[in-house]
Amino acid sequence: MPLSAPGGVEVVALDADDTLWHSEVYFQRTERRFVDLVGRYLDDEADAAAHLALVEHRNLARYGYGIKGFALSMVEAAIEVTDGAIGTDEVASLLAAGRAMLDHPVDLIDGVEETVDALADAGYRLVLVTKGDLHHQEHKIAASGLASRFERMEIVAEKDVATYRRVIAATGVEAAAFCMVGNSVRSDVLPVVELGGRAVHIPYHVTWAHEHVDHDGTVPTVETIRDLPAWLAALG
Amino acid sequence: MPLSAPGGVEVVALDADDTLWHSEVYFQRTERRFVDLVGRYLDDEADAAAHLALVEHRNLARYGYGIKGFALSMVEAAIEVTDGAIGTDEVASLLAAGRAMLDHPVDLIDGVEETVDALADAGYRLVLVTKGDLHHQEHKIAASGLASRFERMEIVAEKDVATYRRVIAATGVEAAAFCMVGNSVRSDVLPVVELGGRAVHIPYHVTWAHEHVDHDGTVPTVETIRDLPAWLAALG
Repeated sequence: MPLSAPGGVEVVALDADDTLWHSEVYFQRTERRFVDLVGRYLDDEADAAAHLALVEHRNLARYGYGIKGFALSMVEAAIEVTDGAIGTDEVASLLAAGRAMLDHPVDLIDGVEETVDALADAGYRLVLVTKGDLHHQEHKIAASGLASRFERMEIVAEKDVATYRRVIAATGVEAAAFCMVGNSVRSDVLPVVELGGRAVHIPYHVTWAHEHVDHDGTVPTVETIRDLPAWLAALG
Repeated sequence: MPLSAPGGVEVVALDADDTLWHSEVYFQRTERRFVDLVGRYLDDEADAAAHLALVEHRNLARYGYGIKGFALSMVEAAIEVTDGAIGTDEVASLLAAGRAMLDHPVDLIDGVEETVDALADAGYRLVLVTKGDLHHQEHKIAASGLASRFERMEIVAEKDVATYRRVIAATGVEAAAFCMVGNSVRSDVLPVVELGGRAVHIPYHVTWAHEHVDHDGTVPTVETIRDLPAWLAALG
Protein backbone atom coordinates (compact mmCIF):
# COMPACT_ATOMS: atom_id res chain seq x y z
CA MET A 1 0.00 0.00 0.00
CA PRO A 2 1.43 3.35 -0.95
CA LEU A 3 0.59 5.02 2.36
CA SER A 4 2.71 2.59 4.40
CA ALA A 5 5.66 2.37 2.02
CA PRO A 6 8.51 4.43 3.54
CA GLY A 7 9.69 6.94 1.02
CA GLY A 8 6.94 5.88 -1.35
CA VAL A 9 4.66 8.03 -3.44
CA GLU A 10 1.41 9.13 -1.78
CA VAL A 11 0.18 11.75 -4.23
CA VAL A 12 0.04 11.13 -7.98
CA ALA A 13 -0.40 14.35 -9.94
CA LEU A 14 -1.53 14.05 -13.54
CA ASP A 15 -1.21 16.53 -16.36
CA ALA A 16 -4.36 16.75 -18.50
CA ASP A 17 -3.82 17.90 -22.13
CA ASP A 18 -2.12 15.06 -24.05
CA THR A 19 -1.81 12.99 -20.87
CA LEU A 20 -5.48 12.33 -20.01
CA TRP A 21 -7.08 13.57 -23.23
CA HIS A 22 -6.04 14.53 -26.75
CA SER A 23 -5.29 18.21 -27.36
CA GLU A 24 -2.24 18.94 -29.53
CA VAL A 25 -3.65 16.95 -32.47
CA TYR A 26 -6.50 19.48 -32.69
CA PHE A 27 -4.06 22.38 -32.72
CA GLN A 28 -2.10 20.70 -35.48
CA ARG A 29 -5.23 19.93 -37.49
CA THR A 30 -6.31 23.58 -37.23
CA GLU A 31 -2.84 24.73 -38.18
CA ARG A 32 -3.05 22.64 -41.37
CA ARG A 33 -6.35 24.38 -42.13
CA PHE A 34 -4.59 27.73 -41.55
CA VAL A 35 -1.81 26.77 -43.97
CA ASP A 36 -4.42 25.67 -46.55
CA LEU A 37 -6.30 28.97 -46.34
CA VAL A 38 -3.36 31.34 -46.05
CA GLY A 39 -0.79 29.48 -48.15
CA ARG A 40 -2.76 30.20 -51.35
CA TYR A 41 -1.72 33.84 -51.04
CA LEU A 42 1.98 33.07 -50.66
CA ASP A 43 4.73 31.98 -53.02
CA ASP A 44 5.87 29.46 -50.44
CA GLU A 45 3.14 27.79 -48.36
CA ALA A 46 5.68 27.05 -45.62
CA ASP A 47 5.81 30.78 -44.83
CA ALA A 48 2.27 30.53 -43.49
CA ALA A 49 3.19 28.08 -40.72
CA ALA A 50 6.43 29.91 -39.97
CA HIS A 51 4.66 33.24 -39.60
CA LEU A 52 1.98 31.75 -37.35
CA ALA A 53 4.69 30.34 -35.08
CA LEU A 54 6.33 33.77 -34.96
CA VAL A 55 3.08 35.57 -34.05
CA GLU A 56 2.18 32.93 -31.45
CA HIS A 57 5.57 33.34 -29.84
CA ARG A 58 5.30 37.15 -29.92
CA ASN A 59 1.90 36.97 -28.16
CA LEU A 60 2.67 34.22 -25.64
CA ALA A 61 3.41 36.49 -22.67
CA ARG A 62 0.27 38.48 -23.48
CA TYR A 63 -2.22 35.70 -24.25
CA GLY A 64 -0.86 32.76 -22.25
CA TYR A 65 -1.77 29.22 -23.29
CA GLY A 66 -4.99 28.09 -24.86
CA ILE A 67 -7.22 28.14 -27.89
CA LYS A 68 -8.49 31.74 -27.68
CA GLY A 69 -4.99 33.17 -27.91
CA PHE A 70 -4.18 30.71 -30.69
CA ALA A 71 -7.24 31.85 -32.66
CA LEU A 72 -6.33 35.53 -32.21
CA SER A 73 -2.79 34.81 -33.37
CA MET A 74 -4.08 32.94 -36.43
CA VAL A 75 -6.11 35.96 -37.56
CA GLU A 76 -3.26 38.36 -36.85
CA ALA A 77 -0.74 36.16 -38.70
CA ALA A 78 -3.07 35.62 -41.66
CA ILE A 79 -3.56 39.35 -42.23
CA GLU A 80 0.10 40.16 -41.66
CA VAL A 81 1.74 37.48 -43.80
CA THR A 82 -0.62 38.18 -46.75
CA ASP A 83 -0.21 41.97 -46.42
CA GLY A 84 -3.94 42.24 -45.88
CA ALA A 85 -4.79 40.32 -49.06
CA ILE A 86 -6.65 37.58 -47.21
CA GLY A 87 -10.43 37.95 -47.35
CA THR A 88 -12.78 38.41 -44.44
CA ASP A 89 -14.50 35.16 -45.40
CA GLU A 90 -11.22 33.39 -44.70
CA VAL A 91 -10.81 35.29 -41.43
CA ALA A 92 -14.31 34.13 -40.52
CA SER A 93 -13.23 30.54 -41.32
CA LEU A 94 -10.26 30.87 -38.97
CA LEU A 95 -12.54 32.13 -36.18
CA ALA A 96 -14.90 29.22 -36.86
CA ALA A 97 -11.96 26.79 -36.63
CA GLY A 98 -11.09 28.21 -33.20
CA ARG A 99 -14.68 27.86 -32.02
CA ALA A 100 -14.79 24.27 -33.30
CA MET A 101 -11.67 23.46 -31.24
CA LEU A 102 -13.34 24.83 -28.09
CA ASP A 103 -16.54 22.94 -28.84
CA HIS A 104 -14.79 19.63 -29.59
CA PRO A 105 -15.83 16.81 -27.23
CA VAL A 106 -13.22 15.63 -24.73
CA ASP A 107 -11.47 12.62 -26.21
CA LEU A 108 -9.80 10.51 -23.51
CA ILE A 109 -6.51 8.83 -24.37
CA ASP A 110 -6.63 5.04 -24.49
CA GLY A 111 -6.33 3.43 -21.07
CA VAL A 112 -6.88 6.60 -19.04
CA GLU A 113 -10.17 5.73 -17.41
CA GLU A 114 -9.11 2.29 -16.12
CA THR A 115 -5.68 3.54 -15.03
CA VAL A 116 -7.10 6.45 -13.04
CA ASP A 117 -9.48 4.00 -11.36
CA ALA A 118 -6.62 1.56 -10.65
CA LEU A 119 -4.52 4.33 -9.07
CA ALA A 120 -7.43 5.43 -6.88
CA ASP A 121 -8.10 1.80 -5.88
CA ALA A 122 -4.43 1.36 -4.99
CA GLY A 123 -4.81 4.17 -2.45
CA TYR A 124 -2.95 6.99 -4.18
CA ARG A 125 -4.30 10.48 -3.66
CA LEU A 126 -4.87 11.92 -7.14
CA VAL A 127 -4.54 15.54 -8.18
CA LEU A 128 -4.80 17.08 -11.63
CA VAL A 129 -2.38 19.84 -12.64
CA THR A 130 -3.01 21.53 -15.94
CA LYS A 131 -2.12 24.84 -17.50
CA GLY A 132 -4.09 26.85 -19.98
CA ASP A 133 -7.40 28.58 -20.17
CA LEU A 134 -9.36 28.39 -16.90
CA HIS A 135 -12.79 28.39 -18.51
CA HIS A 136 -11.96 25.77 -21.14
CA GLN A 137 -10.01 23.50 -18.78
CA GLU A 138 -12.88 23.51 -16.25
CA HIS A 139 -15.23 22.60 -19.06
CA LYS A 140 -12.99 19.73 -20.19
CA ILE A 141 -12.52 18.39 -16.65
CA ALA A 142 -16.30 18.35 -16.16
CA ALA A 143 -16.89 16.74 -19.57
CA SER A 144 -14.18 14.09 -19.01
CA GLY A 145 -16.19 12.31 -16.32
CA LEU A 146 -12.98 11.98 -14.29
CA ALA A 147 -13.43 14.88 -11.86
CA SER A 148 -14.71 12.76 -8.97
CA ARG A 149 -11.47 10.71 -8.91
CA PHE A 150 -9.33 13.76 -8.12
CA GLU A 151 -9.10 15.26 -4.65
CA ARG A 152 -8.05 18.57 -6.18
CA MET A 153 -7.68 20.13 -9.59
CA GLU A 154 -5.14 22.87 -10.13
CA ILE A 155 -5.45 24.98 -13.26
CA VAL A 156 -2.29 27.07 -13.36
CA ALA A 157 -0.94 29.79 -15.62
CA GLU A 158 2.58 28.32 -15.80
CA LYS A 159 4.10 25.00 -14.73
CA ASP A 160 7.33 26.13 -13.12
CA VAL A 161 9.16 25.47 -9.86
CA ALA A 162 7.16 28.14 -7.97
CA THR A 163 3.86 26.65 -9.11
CA TYR A 164 4.82 23.09 -8.17
CA ARG A 165 6.12 24.26 -4.78
CA ARG A 166 2.66 25.68 -4.08
CA VAL A 167 0.84 22.62 -5.46
CA ILE A 168 2.94 20.18 -3.41
CA ALA A 169 2.51 22.31 -0.27
CA ALA A 170 -1.27 22.29 -0.80
CA THR A 171 -1.28 18.47 -0.73
CA GLY A 172 0.55 18.46 2.62
CA VAL A 173 3.12 15.82 1.62
CA GLU A 174 6.89 16.06 1.27
CA ALA A 175 8.11 16.49 -2.30
CA ALA A 176 9.53 12.95 -2.24
CA ALA A 177 6.02 11.56 -1.79
CA PHE A 178 4.70 13.51 -4.79
CA CYS A 179 4.92 12.14 -8.32
CA MET A 180 4.01 14.19 -11.39
CA VAL A 181 2.97 12.41 -14.57
CA GLY A 182 2.78 14.09 -17.95
CA ASN A 183 3.77 14.35 -21.58
CA SER A 184 6.05 17.38 -21.29
CA VAL A 185 9.58 16.94 -19.96
CA ARG A 186 9.84 20.71 -19.69
CA SER A 187 6.58 21.36 -17.81
CA ASP A 188 5.80 18.09 -16.04
CA VAL A 189 9.17 16.53 -15.20
CA LEU A 190 12.10 18.94 -14.77
CA PRO A 191 10.57 21.47 -12.30
CA VAL A 192 9.25 18.68 -10.04
CA VAL A 193 12.58 16.86 -10.02
CA GLU A 194 14.27 20.16 -9.12
CA LEU A 195 12.07 20.31 -6.00
CA GLY A 196 13.05 16.77 -4.95
CA GLY A 197 9.82 15.24 -6.18
CA ARG A 198 9.37 12.32 -8.50
CA ALA A 199 8.16 12.60 -12.08
CA VAL A 200 7.54 10.32 -14.99
CA HIS A 201 7.24 11.17 -18.66
CA ILE A 202 4.58 9.62 -20.90
CA PRO A 203 5.44 10.74 -24.43
CA TYR A 204 2.59 11.84 -26.67
CA HIS A 205 3.07 11.31 -30.39
CA VAL A 206 3.17 15.05 -31.12
CA THR A 207 4.62 17.81 -28.95
CA TRP A 208 4.13 21.56 -29.29
CA ALA A 209 7.42 23.20 -30.27
CA HIS A 210 7.23 25.41 -27.16
CA GLU A 211 7.38 22.32 -24.92
CA HIS A 212 10.50 20.88 -26.52
CA VAL A 213 13.48 20.79 -24.20
CA ASP A 214 16.93 19.27 -24.36
CA HIS A 215 17.74 16.89 -21.54
CA ASP A 216 20.32 14.23 -20.86
CA GLY A 217 18.05 11.26 -21.46
CA THR A 218 17.77 10.06 -17.87
CA VAL A 219 14.12 11.13 -17.52
CA PRO A 220 11.99 8.26 -16.20
CA THR A 221 9.58 7.28 -18.94
CA VAL A 222 6.70 4.88 -19.40
CA GLU A 223 5.32 4.11 -22.83
CA THR A 224 1.62 4.47 -22.05
CA ILE A 225 -0.45 5.46 -19.04
CA ARG A 226 -1.38 1.78 -18.61
CA ASP A 227 2.21 1.17 -17.43
CA LEU A 228 1.94 3.75 -14.65
CA PRO A 229 0.58 1.61 -11.76
CA ALA A 230 3.36 -0.96 -12.19
CA TRP A 231 6.00 1.78 -12.47
CA LEU A 232 4.76 3.37 -9.24
CA ALA A 233 4.57 0.04 -7.44
CA ALA A 234 8.17 -0.71 -8.44
CA LEU A 235 9.36 2.44 -6.66
CA GLY A 236 8.87 0.44 -3.44
CA MET B 1 -10.36 43.37 16.99
CA PRO B 2 -12.24 41.33 14.41
CA LEU B 3 -10.93 37.99 15.63
CA SER B 4 -12.45 38.38 19.09
CA ALA B 5 -15.77 39.85 18.03
CA PRO B 6 -18.41 37.09 18.36
CA GLY B 7 -20.25 36.73 15.11
CA GLY B 8 -17.92 39.26 13.52
CA VAL B 9 -16.19 39.10 10.18
CA GLU B 10 -12.76 37.42 10.10
CA VAL B 11 -12.20 37.07 6.37
CA VAL B 12 -12.72 39.96 3.95
CA ALA B 13 -12.88 38.80 0.34
CA LEU B 14 -12.41 41.41 -2.35
CA ASP B 15 -13.40 41.30 -5.99
CA ALA B 16 -10.73 42.73 -8.30
CA ASP B 17 -12.01 44.13 -11.65
CA ASP B 18 -13.84 47.42 -10.94
CA THR B 19 -13.41 46.93 -7.18
CA LEU B 20 -9.61 47.15 -6.80
CA TRP B 21 -8.72 48.38 -10.28
CA HIS B 22 -10.46 49.83 -13.33
CA SER B 23 -11.55 47.35 -16.00
CA GLU B 24 -14.99 47.99 -17.51
CA VAL B 25 -14.01 51.48 -18.68
CA TYR B 26 -11.43 49.89 -20.99
CA PHE B 27 -14.02 47.51 -22.43
CA GLN B 28 -16.34 50.44 -23.06
CA ARG B 29 -13.59 52.54 -24.63
CA THR B 30 -12.73 49.66 -26.98
CA GLU B 31 -16.39 49.15 -27.78
CA ARG B 32 -16.63 52.81 -28.87
CA ARG B 33 -13.66 52.18 -31.15
CA PHE B 34 -15.50 49.13 -32.54
CA VAL B 35 -18.60 51.23 -33.22
CA ASP B 36 -16.46 53.90 -34.91
CA LEU B 37 -14.80 51.37 -37.22
CA VAL B 38 -17.79 49.17 -38.00
CA GLY B 39 -20.57 51.79 -37.89
CA ARG B 40 -19.27 53.41 -41.10
CA TYR B 41 -20.48 50.36 -43.00
CA LEU B 42 -23.99 50.45 -41.54
CA ASP B 43 -27.06 52.62 -42.09
CA ASP B 44 -27.52 52.81 -38.34
CA GLU B 45 -24.35 52.93 -36.24
CA ALA B 46 -26.29 51.57 -33.25
CA ASP B 47 -26.52 48.21 -35.03
CA ALA B 48 -22.78 47.75 -34.51
CA ALA B 49 -23.00 47.80 -30.71
CA ALA B 50 -26.17 45.71 -30.73
CA HIS B 51 -24.59 43.04 -32.91
CA LEU B 52 -21.44 42.93 -30.77
CA ALA B 53 -23.59 42.36 -27.67
CA LEU B 54 -25.41 39.56 -29.48
CA VAL B 55 -22.18 37.81 -30.56
CA GLU B 56 -20.63 38.23 -27.09
CA HIS B 57 -23.69 36.64 -25.53
CA ARG B 58 -23.69 33.81 -28.10
CA ASN B 59 -20.03 33.06 -27.29
CA LEU B 60 -20.11 33.47 -23.50
CA ALA B 61 -20.46 29.79 -22.62
CA ARG B 62 -17.66 28.99 -25.08
CA TYR B 63 -15.18 31.79 -24.32
CA GLY B 64 -15.96 32.65 -20.69
CA TYR B 65 -14.99 36.09 -19.38
CA GLY B 66 -12.05 38.17 -20.42
CA ILE B 67 -10.42 40.24 -23.10
CA LYS B 68 -9.40 37.44 -25.49
CA GLY B 69 -12.98 36.25 -25.91
CA PHE B 70 -14.11 39.87 -26.27
CA ALA B 71 -11.54 40.46 -29.04
CA LEU B 72 -12.59 37.31 -30.89
CA SER B 73 -16.24 38.36 -30.64
CA MET B 74 -15.40 41.85 -31.96
CA VAL B 75 -13.83 40.39 -35.12
CA GLU B 76 -16.67 37.91 -35.60
CA ALA B 77 -19.33 40.60 -35.11
CA ALA B 78 -17.56 43.07 -37.41
CA ILE B 79 -17.45 40.60 -40.30
CA GLU B 80 -20.98 39.38 -39.72
CA VAL B 81 -22.79 42.69 -39.30
CA THR B 82 -21.07 44.20 -42.38
CA ASP B 83 -21.68 41.06 -44.49
CA GLY B 84 -17.94 40.77 -44.94
CA ALA B 85 -17.55 44.32 -46.27
CA ILE B 86 -15.21 45.37 -43.46
CA GLY B 87 -11.56 45.40 -44.50
CA THR B 88 -8.74 43.35 -43.05
CA ASP B 89 -7.00 46.58 -42.02
CA GLU B 90 -9.97 47.27 -39.73
CA VAL B 91 -9.91 43.69 -38.45
CA ALA B 92 -6.22 44.22 -37.66
CA SER B 93 -7.19 47.41 -35.77
CA LEU B 94 -9.69 45.46 -33.66
CA LEU B 95 -7.02 42.86 -32.82
CA ALA B 96 -4.64 45.68 -31.90
CA ALA B 97 -7.30 47.19 -29.63
CA GLY B 98 -7.63 43.86 -27.81
CA ARG B 99 -3.86 43.61 -27.38
CA ALA B 100 -3.77 47.17 -26.05
CA MET B 101 -6.36 46.25 -23.41
CA LEU B 102 -4.23 43.31 -22.27
CA ASP B 103 -1.12 45.47 -22.21
CA HIS B 104 -2.74 48.35 -20.32
CA PRO B 105 -1.10 49.05 -16.94
CA VAL B 106 -3.12 48.16 -13.84
CA ASP B 107 -4.91 51.31 -12.70
CA LEU B 108 -5.90 51.07 -9.02
CA ILE B 109 -9.17 52.69 -7.99
CA ASP B 110 -8.83 55.67 -5.67
CA GLY B 111 -8.40 54.69 -2.04
CA VAL B 112 -7.70 50.99 -2.67
CA GLU B 113 -4.09 50.85 -1.48
CA GLU B 114 -4.67 52.57 1.87
CA THR B 115 -7.91 50.68 2.50
CA VAL B 116 -6.35 47.28 1.86
CA ASP B 117 -3.54 48.24 4.25
CA ALA B 118 -6.05 49.45 6.86
CA LEU B 119 -8.00 46.18 6.66
CA ALA B 120 -4.82 44.14 7.05
CA ASP B 121 -3.71 46.31 9.99
CA ALA B 122 -7.12 45.82 11.63
CA GLY B 123 -6.47 42.07 11.63
CA TYR B 124 -8.80 40.90 8.89
CA ARG B 125 -7.61 37.99 6.78
CA LEU B 126 -7.80 39.15 3.16
CA VAL B 127 -8.57 37.04 0.12
CA LEU B 128 -9.04 38.09 -3.48
CA VAL B 129 -11.79 36.46 -5.55
CA THR B 130 -11.91 37.34 -9.22
CA LYS B 131 -13.27 35.73 -12.33
CA GLY B 132 -11.95 35.92 -15.83
CA ASP B 133 -8.86 34.95 -17.66
CA LEU B 134 -6.30 33.13 -15.46
CA HIS B 135 -3.24 34.40 -17.31
CA HIS B 136 -4.36 38.03 -17.45
CA GLN B 137 -5.70 38.12 -13.87
CA GLU B 138 -2.41 36.69 -12.51
CA HIS B 139 -0.57 39.34 -14.46
CA LYS B 140 -2.78 42.12 -13.05
CA ILE B 141 -2.49 40.84 -9.47
CA ALA B 142 1.30 40.82 -9.78
CA ALA B 143 1.35 44.27 -11.39
CA SER B 144 -1.02 45.75 -8.79
CA GLY B 145 1.58 45.53 -6.02
CA LEU B 146 -1.18 44.25 -3.69
CA ALA B 147 -0.47 40.51 -3.82
CA SER B 148 1.46 40.36 -0.54
CA ARG B 149 -1.57 41.68 1.42
CA PHE B 150 -3.73 38.69 0.43
CA GLU B 151 -3.42 35.29 2.09
CA ARG B 152 -4.94 33.69 -0.98
CA MET B 153 -6.04 34.66 -4.44
CA GLU B 154 -8.83 32.73 -6.13
CA ILE B 155 -9.24 33.15 -9.87
CA VAL B 156 -12.50 31.40 -10.70
CA ALA B 157 -14.42 30.68 -13.89
CA GLU B 158 -17.81 31.67 -12.44
CA LYS B 159 -18.89 33.42 -9.23
CA ASP B 160 -21.83 31.30 -8.18
CA VAL B 161 -22.97 29.58 -4.99
CA ALA B 162 -20.86 26.47 -5.65
CA THR B 163 -17.72 28.55 -6.15
CA TYR B 164 -18.25 30.61 -3.00
CA ARG B 165 -18.99 27.45 -0.97
CA ARG B 166 -15.55 26.16 -2.01
CA VAL B 167 -13.82 29.49 -1.41
CA ILE B 168 -15.33 29.90 2.07
CA ALA B 169 -14.47 26.28 2.96
CA ALA B 170 -10.86 26.89 1.89
CA THR B 171 -10.57 29.77 4.39
CA GLY B 172 -11.76 27.50 7.22
CA VAL B 173 -14.28 29.99 8.65
CA GLU B 174 -18.05 29.78 8.93
CA ALA B 175 -19.95 31.66 6.21
CA ALA B 176 -21.09 34.23 8.80
CA ALA B 177 -17.46 35.24 9.38
CA PHE B 178 -16.86 35.76 5.64
CA CYS B 179 -17.63 39.06 3.95
CA MET B 180 -17.44 39.53 0.17
CA VAL B 181 -16.90 43.01 -1.24
CA GLY B 182 -17.45 43.91 -4.88
CA ASN B 183 -19.10 45.97 -7.57
CA SER B 184 -21.49 43.30 -8.88
CA VAL B 185 -24.67 42.54 -6.94
CA ARG B 186 -25.15 39.48 -9.12
CA SER B 187 -21.65 38.00 -8.74
CA ASP B 188 -20.33 39.42 -5.46
CA VAL B 189 -23.37 39.84 -3.21
CA LEU B 190 -26.31 37.51 -3.90
CA PRO B 191 -24.52 34.10 -3.97
CA VAL B 192 -22.64 34.87 -0.74
CA VAL B 193 -25.79 36.02 1.06
CA GLU B 194 -27.50 32.81 -0.09
CA LEU B 195 -24.77 30.84 1.74
CA GLY B 196 -25.29 32.78 4.98
CA GLY B 197 -22.26 34.98 4.43
CA ARG B 198 -22.05 38.74 4.50
CA ALA B 199 -21.53 40.90 1.45
CA VAL B 200 -21.32 44.57 0.62
CA HIS B 201 -21.76 46.28 -2.71
CA ILE B 202 -19.45 49.09 -3.88
CA PRO B 203 -21.03 50.44 -7.06
CA TYR B 204 -18.72 51.23 -9.97
CA HIS B 205 -19.84 54.00 -12.29
CA VAL B 206 -20.32 51.60 -15.22
CA THR B 207 -21.53 48.00 -15.12
CA TRP B 208 -21.35 45.39 -17.86
CA ALA B 209 -24.87 44.54 -19.06
CA HIS B 210 -24.28 40.87 -18.19
CA GLU B 211 -23.80 41.78 -14.50
CA HIS B 212 -27.06 43.71 -14.21
CA VAL B 213 -29.54 42.08 -11.86
CA ASP B 214 -32.85 43.14 -10.38
CA HIS B 215 -32.95 43.09 -6.61
CA ASP B 216 -35.18 44.50 -3.94
CA GLY B 217 -32.87 47.29 -2.87
CA THR B 218 -31.85 45.90 0.51
CA VAL B 219 -28.29 45.11 -0.58
CA PRO B 220 -25.77 46.60 1.86
CA THR B 221 -23.85 49.29 0.00
CA VAL B 222 -20.94 51.62 0.67
CA GLU B 223 -20.18 54.49 -1.65
CA THR B 224 -16.43 53.97 -1.98
CA ILE B 225 -13.90 51.42 -0.75
CA ARG B 226 -12.67 54.03 1.76
CA ASP B 227 -15.93 53.48 3.69
CA LEU B 228 -15.31 49.74 4.05
CA PRO B 229 -13.32 49.62 7.33
CA ALA B 230 -15.95 51.68 9.18
CA TRP B 231 -18.76 49.58 7.68
CA LEU B 232 -17.08 46.36 8.83
CA ALA B 233 -16.33 47.78 12.30
CA ALA B 234 -19.98 48.76 12.70
CA LEU B 235 -21.03 45.10 12.20
CA GLY B 236 -19.82 44.61 15.77
